[in-house]
Amino acid sequence: MTNETTQLITDIGELTTQADGEPRRADRAMLVQGGRIRWIGDATHAPAADTRVSVGGRAVLPGWVDSHTHLLFAGDRSAEFEARMAGQPYAAGGIRDTVTATRAATDAELESTVQRLAAEALAQGTTFLETKTGYGLDVDSERRAAQIGARHADVVSFLGAHVVPDEIDTRDYLDLVTGPMLAAVLPWVSFIDVFCERGAFDVEQSHEVLLAGRAAGLGLRVHGNQLGPGGGIALAVELGAASVDHCNAVSPADLDALAGATTVATVLPACDLSTRQPLAPARRLLDAGVTVALATNCNPGTSYTTSMQFAVATAVLQMGLTIEEAVWAATRGGARALQRDTGADAVGSLVAGGRADFQVLDAPSVAHLAYRPGVPLTIAVWQRGQRMPRPPAL
Amino acid sequence: MTNETTQLITDIGELTTQADGEPRRADRAMLVQGGRIRWIGDATHAPAADTRVSVGGRAVLPGWVDSHTHLLFAGDRSAEFEARMAGQPYAAGGIRDTVTATRAATDAELESTVQRLAAEALAQGTTFLETKTGYGLDVDSERRAAQIGARHADVVSFLGAHVVPDEIDTRDYLDLVTGPMLAAVLPWVSFIDVFCERGAFDVEQSHEVLLAGRAAGLGLRVHGNQLGPGGGIALAVELGAASVDHCNAVSPADLDALAGATTVATVLPACDLSTRQPLAPARRLLDAGVTVALATNCNPGTSYTTSMQFAVATAVLQMGLTIEEAVWAATRGGARALQRDTGADAVGSLVAGGRADFQVLDAPSVAHLAYRPGVPLTIAVWQRGQRMPRPPAL
Ligand SMILES: [Zn+2]
Ligand SMILES: [Zn+2]
Repeated sequence: MTNETTQLITDIGELTTQADGEPRRADRAMLVQGGRIRWIGDATHAPAADTRVSVGGRAVLPGWVDSHTHLLFAGDRSAEFEARMAGQPYAAGGIRDTVTATRAATDAELESTVQRLAAEALAQGTTFLETKTGYGLDVDSERRAAQIGARHADVVSFLGAHVVPDEIDTRDYLDLVTGPMLAAVLPWVSFIDVFCERGAFDVEQSHEVLLAGRAAGLGLRVHGNQLGPGGGIALAVELGAASVDHCNAVSPADLDALAGATTVATVLPACDLSTRQPLAPARRLLDAGVTVALATNCNPGTSYTTSMQFAVATAVLQMGLTIEEAVWAATRGGARALQRDTGADAVGSLVAGGRADFQVLDAPSVAHLAYRPGVPLTIAVWQRGQRMPRPPAL
Repeated sequence: MTNETTQLITDIGELTTQADGEPRRADRAMLVQGGRIRWIGDATHAPAADTRVSVGGRAVLPGWVDSHTHLLFAGDRSAEFEARMAGQPYAAGGIRDTVTATRAATDAELESTVQRLAAEALAQGTTFLETKTGYGLDVDSERRAAQIGARHADVVSFLGAHVVPDEIDTRDYLDLVTGPMLAAVLPWVSFIDVFCERGAFDVEQSHEVLLAGRAAGLGLRVHGNQLGPGGGIALAVELGAASVDHCNAVSPADLDALAGATTVATVLPACDLSTRQPLAPARRLLDAGVTVALATNCNPGTSYTTSMQFAVATAVLQMGLTIEEAVWAATRGGARALQRDTGADAVGSLVAGGRADFQVLDAPSVAHLAYRPGVPLTIAVWQRGQRMPRPPAL
């Protein structure tokens, strides 16, 4: 299929575009050409096209935008997970174990992991993916992660400030992160991120990291308020970060700050469940007028899933979101958290002229994403106008 | 492939057999012939075989045994679900709406639904499936459901005593259920089931229904203690029912009764989440020595999922079960709930001489079933020694 060929996606039983104010609509069709959507409308008025693909009355929606993952790692932490679930002590170093394994991995090993997980995510409907560095924590390892990440993810965030590695003290590490490490990753990253949490970086240290990133031209992201109250949300809002992620412990002042800000609050339900923490108060955030995104936080320690459908189902079943709110948060909400929800390169919505990134559900309605928890519903995925091949069988 | 052909399943990275006292083991192989397992052991001592299938170091375990579903229905209740999730009132008749739609459906419509859902379950690893009647509620409709159900499920349970339909009073309906309706379904069903709950049937009425089933030679099952405290569990234990299902409201006396009984407590986490009820106290049941099974309760009103993986993941992440306990509950536990866990036709375990019903995960360990929530891990399924074809793409 050349770039000039037109494809008509037809017999769309329910179309969710996420265009402003546009509700789900029945009996739609969509014309795709050159990686973009050329026309969307009533199926009975569809233009002629070179090829037609009937989706047989199924639901079509934008591909998921997963705005928070950590795919640049090596090593296995399933035994640690299993021990945690069994309530058993487990003498593991958590993130530090992953850092040791990641540093020791070959480039090919690192690449094969991110490639496998990005492909797994794509098969489940994720057409736009952020990933972070943060398991290298020295200049060469972080540069390598950023470079490999940029080959397989749409957006890479620099998370040198994940934790302080064992071999260096905090002050020296901050100088490294904000100096040579930042310079080394810069060609491949769009955001700087920081783990602002007790045991990682305090507000002052996080502020320093973010300012260095901003001075280098990067957008800002913050891991904040996951394990307890803290200044992560306030800092993110103060600096106009694109997103503050986790948001489990949200004070009234945090809520007020977020409500008046452009900063998106990204909640990570699979992480909350995998660590047996209370789910983030997404309903309370929405009720206060905060913009909420849903993401997987895919990482080997605390949330090893690529399933955006699981995040959506959990948000609806257990966090009090409506279907509409959850699907928006997992598509256009994720795009906004990555500052990619408007303009010519916008993702997370389906509009004439925009990117043709969409998925077909084996269901008549997006409601089934939560109505049918666990059933893998994404049956076909288009990315930039191309239908993705099915993943190989055993 | 003829029945005489031998297949060697090799490079099994982790084998879970669910044979008594057998742990998960690495580096296994399994010889299959004539629908049965002929040999299981260390891969280095594997016998010769006509064909070899390498599973590439992946985990192999028994197929799921889903011991509680309601697949013999027509009609759609996604709008009711969506309204419930949005906290909106919805003027629907619940089970009665499904009864109206089911009675009005053609045989072909009814058959196509159960066929589609059984195939969906099989593709996700469910190799042994119970389903129930209970949306017909008149003699002809219940007989039709039982007959169609027996073509697509391994076990059919008669649930004439689901609710009292609108057109008849309770006493007359009990006479119908225990008389002509029971006689009509008898050729196709193995169990009688009753919805012992406020708004459905009280303990005395449930007792009458179960005794009639037993007199006709059927095993007994009970829906009990879902919506609040009640006598369902005590009744199930008293009559030696195979299983009592839901068990959300478990009193200390219920716990004592179950602990000393052969009756299995079947918990249905997807139903609990889909109705926003507290999850059943499975950890407390296990700690008291009760046998626990996990099932989907797949039905269009309160739990429209065929995903046993979702039940397992939820049990581990949110109900305090270990991986081992959850996987046992979803395989051999389900088999015990259907009184099929021992003997020549046993299911839910992998033993030499036993049925060759198993699944391969795209993961090195069963731990990944909960470690990777939402990711569809079942990559291949064998039922009675035959590899099942992949479901069709769009
Ligand atoms: Zn993270
Ligand atoms: Zn039921």
